[in-house]
Amino acid sequence: MKILVFGGDGFCGWPAALHLSARGHDVTIVDNLSRRRIDRELDSQSLTPIASMDDRIAAWRDVTGTTVPFHNIDIAQDFDALTDLLATQRPHAVVHFAEQRSAPYSMLGPAEKRYTVSNNLNATHNLLAAIVSTGLDCHVVHLGSIGVYGYGTARMKIPEGYLNITAAGDSEEPVNRDILYPADPDSIYHMTKAQDQLLFTFYNKNDGVRITDLHQGIVWGTQTEETKRDIRLINRFDYDGVYGTVLNRFLMQAAIGYPLSVHGSGRQTRAFIHIRDTVRCIAHALDHAPEQGDRVSIYNQVAETHRVLDLANMVSTMTGADIEHVPSPRNEPDENELSLTNDQFFGHALQPITLDQGLMEEIRNLASTYAANCNRDKIPSTPTWRSA
Amino acid sequence: MKILVFGGDGFCGWPAALHLSARGHDVTIVDNLSRRRIDRELDSQSLTPIASMDDRIAAWRDVTGTTVPFHNIDIAQDFDALTDLLATQRPHAVVHFAEQRSAPYSMLGPAEKRYTVSNNLNATHNLLAAIVSTGLDCHVVHLGSIGVYGYGTARMKIPEGYLNITAAGDSEEPVNRDILYPADPDSIYHMTKAQDQLLFTFYNKNDGVRITDLHQGIVWGTQTEETKRDIRLINRFDYDGVYGTVLNRFLMQAAIGYPLSVHGSGRQTRAFIHIRDTVRCIAHALDHAPEQGDRVSIYNQVAETHRVLDLANMVSTMTGADIEHVPSPRNEPDENELSLTNDQFFGHALQPITLDQGLMEEIRNLASTYAANCNRDKIPSTPTWRSA
Repeated sequence: MKILVFGGDGFCGWPAALHLSARGHDVTIVDNLSRRRIDRELDSQSLTPIASMDDRIAAWRDVTGTTVPFHNIDIAQDFDALTDLLATQRPHAVVHFAEQRSAPYSMLGPAEKRYTVSNNLNATHNLLAAIVSTGLDCHVVHLGSIGVYGYGTARMKIPEGYLNITAAGDSEEPVNRDILYPADPDSIYHMTKAQDQLLFTFYNKNDGVRITDLHQGIVWGTQTEETKRDIRLINRFDYDGVYGTVLNRFLMQAAIGYPLSVHGSGRQTRAFIHIRDTVRCIAHALDHAPEQGDRVSIYNQVAETHRVLDLANMVSTMTGADIEHVPSPRNEPDENELSLTNDQFFGHALQPITLDQGLMEEIRNLASTYAANCNRDKIPSTPTWRSA
Repeated sequence: MKILVFGGDGFCGWPAALHLSARGHDVTIVDNLSRRRIDRELDSQSLTPIASMDDRIAAWRDVTGTTVPFHNIDIAQDFDALTDLLATQRPHAVVHFAEQRSAPYSMLGPAEKRYTVSNNLNATHNLLAAIVSTGLDCHVVHLGSIGVYGYGTARMKIPEGYLNITAAGDSEEPVNRDILYPADPDSIYHMTKAQDQLLFTFYNKNDGVRITDLHQGIVWGTQTEETKRDIRLINRFDYDGVYGTVLNRFLMQAAIGYPLSVHGSGRQTRAFIHIRDTVRCIAHALDHAPEQGDRVSIYNQVAETHRVLDLANMVSTMTGADIEHVPSPRNEPDENELSLTNDQFFGHALQPITLDQGLMEEIRNLASTYAANCNRDKIPSTPTWRSA
């Protein structure tokens, strides 16, 4: 299958592109290298030494004989280049990771809020408008977020995208309907994913675009089978307070003897998935495209849920690291339950990787190996959700 | 009250600015004159001869002694100018009309789709981000649209913004909750208004911004008490197939002896409000600002609902005009019911202007007076929702 991977230089996009290439798909990467630009802007960088895009592609060619072409295009800005690319390549499917993906970054200040809104919505909308204007029948697989559901309000096992509701109607019979699960995002970033859902619903309804939206939990892990094959293929490992995800940060903190920083009570429940499952889920979604006329397919791309404090205790027990409670920079409930349906991926099709000591050790070893690259000043999460 | 009116040169924004000024508020208009630019782009123009902004302001000063300052700022693009203006003026309230407001325009092609999404979402988001970054406690009144609810799916009297639903929960007791009425927009334009709702919900929840969102029906009429006071104050009258609203188009068609063009069956039900009620509702909303801590206030700003064919018959009876059914360019149900709650405005506070013959006559006279300005080629509605 011919597949364009938008955002194929990022933490999920890069290993997904390689995994799809390894499975025999004809993969092309499109990226504007914005994640590397933001690294420079924040004066932070991946703990692991990530190679240039040229070197990454050369390495993949060296180990597999396959070339994955790369196009440097900002799809949020350059609609003509995007349209030309789609018209020339005529992909069967596109995978859309080309969005700013950090909630703390999206709350840093007005410039970062505005960038996140404009970049993410224009990227998604340009892609949909270009597919329609080029007349492609192309399956769009998009990386959404569990954060669209919100953390404060569920009181139910959250379904996969659609909620069946009952409301009083005009007749004696109440109205019963499937609706998009009511969005309740807790950051600007997550809000853009909820707004993306409205773009998908409209283009699916009006133009018949076939779309799969994957509401992913917090990713942990770094390497996949493919990124391990050459040092130049190594994946990003973000440990900083803006882009680092919680479990990876704990493991890195343990590796360098820094207390595990738990925000607030730590009784916030979050959903997790290993990066190797991320790439498997993307492949699965591509193999199970919706048919013409189907509504938007929505999957919850999560393996398990945990309280943040329980994760910290687990890592502490494993490593002897101390735990430090710090004030939460976020504006969200200090404690929440979170339970998610994930049958479409993990009910029968796949077996998820769950928190496994061996895999955690692998990450901690990786963190130890590159500990010299760590700038301890970058560890605290400084962006606050509200000004004081 | 010190009020900034964003989009104060437009069809609703201009008469609203004058009405608020007439009521003694300290009004400043902010606009990038984009509606005049789009007139040139489409080679169409208002049937009524609209004066330049300088002449409009001079006329209002001549008849009232009051100056309404005007700032030419594109708030979707120039965040610094917007922030400076808010920081300098420190308004008590802002009225936000600064969005591309035609559904057919938003469906013309990829450029117009992209402009509508980027302009509308960045305008709304910049305004909210600027209010937060300047630390203003400022009431935001926004013109939304009944179109966020959609036309195909209600089977109920649509409430004002929030729907009480029941869904299966974790315990035996079902979950009962107020949610934003599930959006089901039928055009890119209406979709942006649904996406705006998510912006409002987030900024209200995270930053405590006080917001009123007015879901308005199709506006008819042209003049208000204020715009009638001087020929240079006259309001826009759009009759073209892109910006003209249905009832005004029928009246103009009758005035020039052009058959009333009904799209499809004409059994589509739509909601209507007179422009004089629009400006009264805006004033009412400003006088009834939500308190700190309140959720977003949502009103249905509509007076009545009618089937399009019934309107055509009404105008035909009045004028003898023929009715012509033309294929609908839209992708929407050919027939729908529409019933809307509007108690907050019209339950007790105000009495709406309904389609009575006297007012119809007034518009017909206006259309007749300026019939010579009409370019008949611009009457058909050419933008189609899907390419053939």
